[in-house]
Amino acid sequence: MSHILASAVQELYPGVKFGIGPAIENGFYYDFEFAKGKSITPEDLPRIEKKMREMAKQGIPFKKKIASKAEARKIFKAQPYKLEIIKELPGKTVSLYLSGEFTDLCKGPHIKSTKEISPDSFKLEKIAGAYWKGDEKNKMLTRIYGLAFDTKKELEEYVSAVREAEKRDHRVLGQKLDLFMMDEEIGAGLPLWLPKGALLRHLIEEYLRKELASQGYQWVVTPHIANINLWKTSGHWEHYRENIYSPIKIDEEEYLLKPMNCPFHLKIFGSKTRSYKDLPFKMAELGTVYRYEKSGVLHGLTRVRGFTQDDAHIICTKDQLTEELEKLLKFGLKILNDFGFKNFDIYLSTRPKKFAGTIKGWEKATDSLKYVLKKLGLKYEIDAAGGVFYGPKIDIKIKDSLNRPWQCTTIQVDFNLPERFDMSYIGPKGKKERPFMIHRALLGSLERFIGVLIENYAGAFPFWLSPVQVCVIPIGSSHEEYAREVEESLKAHNFRCQLKNENETVSKKIREAEIEKIPYSLVIGDKETSAKTVRVRERGKGDAGEMKLAEFIKKAEAER
Amino acid sequence: MSHILASAVQELYPGVKFGIGPAIENGFYYDFEFAKGKSITPEDLPRIEKKMREMAKQGIPFKKKIASKAEARKIFKAQPYKLEIIKELPGKTVSLYLSGEFTDLCKGPHIKSTKEISPDSFKLEKIAGAYWKGDEKNKMLTRIYGLAFDTKKELEEYVSAVREAEKRDHRVLGQKLDLFMMDEEIGAGLPLWLPKGALLRHLIEEYLRKELASQGYQWVVTPHIANINLWKTSGHWEHYRENIYSPIKIDEEEYLLKPMNCPFHLKIFGSKTRSYKDLPFKMAELGTVYRYEKSGVLHGLTRVRGFTQDDAHIICTKDQLTEELEKLLKFGLKILNDFGFKNFDIYLSTRPKKFAGTIKGWEKATDSLKYVLKKLGLKYEIDAAGGVFYGPKIDIKIKDSLNRPWQCTTIQVDFNLPERFDMSYIGPKGKKERPFMIHRALLGSLERFIGVLIENYAGAFPFWLSPVQVCVIPIGSSHEEYAREVEESLKAHNFRCQLKNENETVSKKIREAEIEKIPYSLVIGDKETSAKTVRVRERGKGDAGEMKLAEFIKKAEAER
Repeated sequence: MSHILASAVQELYPGVKFGIGPAIENGFYYDFEFAKGKSITPEDLPRIEKKMREMAKQGIPFKKKIASKAEARKIFKAQPYKLEIIKELPGKTVSLYLSGEFTDLCKGPHIKSTKEISPDSFKLEKIAGAYWKGDEKNKMLTRIYGLAFDTKKELEEYVSAVREAEKRDHRVLGQKLDLFMMDEEIGAGLPLWLPKGALLRHLIEEYLRKELASQGYQWVVTPHIANINLWKTSGHWEHYRENIYSPIKIDEEEYLLKPMNCPFHLKIFGSKTRSYKDLPFKMAELGTVYRYEKSGVLHGLTRVRGFTQDDAHIICTKDQLTEELEKLLKFGLKILNDFGFKNFDIYLSTRPKKFAGTIKGWEKATDSLKYVLKKLGLKYEIDAAGGVFYGPKIDIKIKDSLNRPWQCTTIQVDFNLPERFDMSYIGPKGKKERPFMIHRALLGSLERFIGVLIENYAGAFPFWLSPVQVCVIPIGSSHEEYAREVEESLKAHNFRCQLKNENETVSKKIREAEIEKIPYSLVIGDKETSAKTVRVRERGKGDAGEMKLAEFIKKAEAER
Repeated sequence: MSHILASAVQELYPGVKFGIGPAIENGFYYDFEFAKGKSITPEDLPRIEKKMREMAKQGIPFKKKIASKAEARKIFKAQPYKLEIIKELPGKTVSLYLSGEFTDLCKGPHIKSTKEISPDSFKLEKIAGAYWKGDEKNKMLTRIYGLAFDTKKELEEYVSAVREAEKRDHRVLGQKLDLFMMDEEIGAGLPLWLPKGALLRHLIEEYLRKELASQGYQWVVTPHIANINLWKTSGHWEHYRENIYSPIKIDEEEYLLKPMNCPFHLKIFGSKTRSYKDLPFKMAELGTVYRYEKSGVLHGLTRVRGFTQDDAHIICTKDQLTEELEKLLKFGLKILNDFGFKNFDIYLSTRPKKFAGTIKGWEKATDSLKYVLKKLGLKYEIDAAGGVFYGPKIDIKIKDSLNRPWQCTTIQVDFNLPERFDMSYIGPKGKKERPFMIHRALLGSLERFIGVLIENYAGAFPFWLSPVQVCVIPIGSSHEEYAREVEESLKAHNFRCQLKNENETVSKKIREAEIEKIPYSLVIGDKETSAKTVRVRERGKGDAGEMKLAEFIKKAEAER
């Protein structure tokens, strides 16, 4: 497709110079330097596309040719970027592909003929500026992006998925729904949670507190900074420095903003002599950590510089490892299920070349992880030798309603920190033993997870997570008294309720409630006031009929 | 008393050299350099004390004498520290006090005779090292501290209060009760909350959430760092820099760990156009801030480097100010009452010489504060011109069970930040207006408040704040099944419950429960198992009789 694009541009814009043109996910691009004084705009893309479609139909053959570098230099004598590439390529010969009037430097392989391309399965997408070789000291070229699929249907599905994803963009919805904000003067990647967003966060926190208590976790709270010595002991200063912010000086000592909670939890474990009877010891924290990310990769809530992990550490004996991992995996999937996620991509990463701990330890832990995945009947992929150096791990990507994967859950065995912090417990025979340690975050981070929730539900959160659950709309001022009664009654039943008693039309209030994605609106007029009923409107569905308030409360309680 | 101490030491340790000896709160001290090879230990204090008592009884007169510096130099020729002081004193003459064999440089005034001192109303307390002039480059002298009161009774009361305070020291109890810990490798002034302490913190947070919701506050969550530009806008970088930690560099920009939450809250207010209908706008946050404190002043939880404020900002119109202040003060006192504090010292600080805002604004705000204090019938002291530069304020010190005051609540009007952040709302006539702004923290900080709670209750928290509320103690293994039933039933009624089913004696388990300050222990033996009752023990009171479980639950529910 890149070759066809370049060939069409060559025909339409004589004198154009070619950069590179690789295939990328869902399509391709090509970088061009247009002749002096010439340039293109998005309005020119249909013309180029038309030419490409003609070429596709013509059945132009692709032919490979091996040429000496001298010969290639002759062919590309008017193409300075190609000459630069030829110079940098190893060996004495280069591979060329010829198609119609166009010749490109290319390793291939390629289709035999443009006939293989369905003319309605591709589309030029957009243009952008791109520095030659990505270096801003070089010239800015014009990059044309295209989409390409096997069939027209696939292209259309992709385009409509992108359009749908744009509508669900959590950055846009986050602002529309008053959930969070960013502020340039505060800094990039540092979200501020507005009242409704802070409430959503709190609902998730409360849910986690309840669920984790049932699993025997104990909550702790630790500071956001610690002396650099702690991070030297933990090894983070040595191995994780690129993600750690520059030190703060306090009384001639250096302190770091915490990128992880683990060392604090290990200090808590180590603050007392622990016995095997104390294990498994499960500590949880909603710990806010700060990690460096390049400003270019920051993205709404899903890629930030400060975020709150639903972090926990499980410290157990060797004999408890498998059972704890099984409980953990089951529990993690239950949690994701409760938030409405049913489809997952699961990965098991195994021992890399450089690793901490013993081979025996790694085998024990990896076997336990595999056993548990198998026992729960979960499909997973092995990322062989792709693990982190400190231990094997399971990563779970949740698939959202557009089937996009999002990395959330991670369950990791760690052989490094127990050594570094010289962790121990007194075994049944009175001897010191080294425990196993599991790190785990189930949602990953509250910020990221809420970003995914927003996109998954397009902001229309399930009833239990909606910042406002019920909106009460009196038609006129004579209905306000009963509307207030309804509001009070709902609040007494612990529903999050809003009374819309501004001097607006009913239809405007209903529209507002729809925009705010409030699950239920209760409209109250003469009939409802005298019959002590409510007219229920359901989000996205419209009128759900008139009912007694008690009946609505029963219905809503069933959804809670 | 210092003179008498020095005189006694002069007699008992010939050749001693004198530093300084001032009066201090509850007593006095004197610094000595003992002759070469001599030194004293705490065991020597009774001997010195005895000599002092003899002198007190002798009725030695104090005589003042004005001497020329030359004369004074002669008198103190063997006293290098006194010579140094003489040199530094302004003027040509110095004031001396003579008492018996001892002469000291001293401005006075003094009692006429040692007869005025009751010989059993003072006591030597301890010895310590102290550098001459507090400079570690100088010689280390020996400081003897003494306590002195008007009567024996006052001395005894003070000594027993100190002993009681030591027993209540939250640093000791915090460790004993597993509430929090400090770790040198993490850093001074940075507490880690252990499970029971984190639970106590959470109980307070939940209580605040509920109470604040009823007052119309909305919760927000903001980051712990922000670009230095924010702190320049707010003025903190200019006026508060000594309490701010050194900047963190991110992508060539400087960021600061937040010492305050206000600028974030103002950004949230300013993120939208606000109408007078949106006021009062009340934002609350449990915001963790970091402020520099010298390592020497750090003290357990009550003086730390990182702490969580129960912070809020109320933004209102001029006309709403008085009403909001009244609600706030009432609400603040109710909160403190709920935690068991009934006695307060209240201070109103008024306009200092340098101030932000207008005199009219200050008068309006100060009048409102006074009016509200008067209306609620509260006694207060005026700290005239002692206010902060940005606005008048009310500070409330709570008095604990030993009658010690602790600064907690602060309610401050701010004329500075609304200007700096150009805050505005659209008034009823469609014109932009500048709102009034109130900062307030009711508990102050969770760390400090919990420190005070621990000392106030000597760790025996009221039922609703106890991390473990009920302890179930089976006498033997045959009672475990029913004990577990009791535990489950209590948990189902949302009590925080612990089953002590270790293989220990009942008396040891009861003792443990007392040490852990658990409000109730339910002992279960044969009789209780067959009658389905529990034997109740109340913390600090002992046996409270046998009762049906349902009866105990009713009793406990009444305390919740």
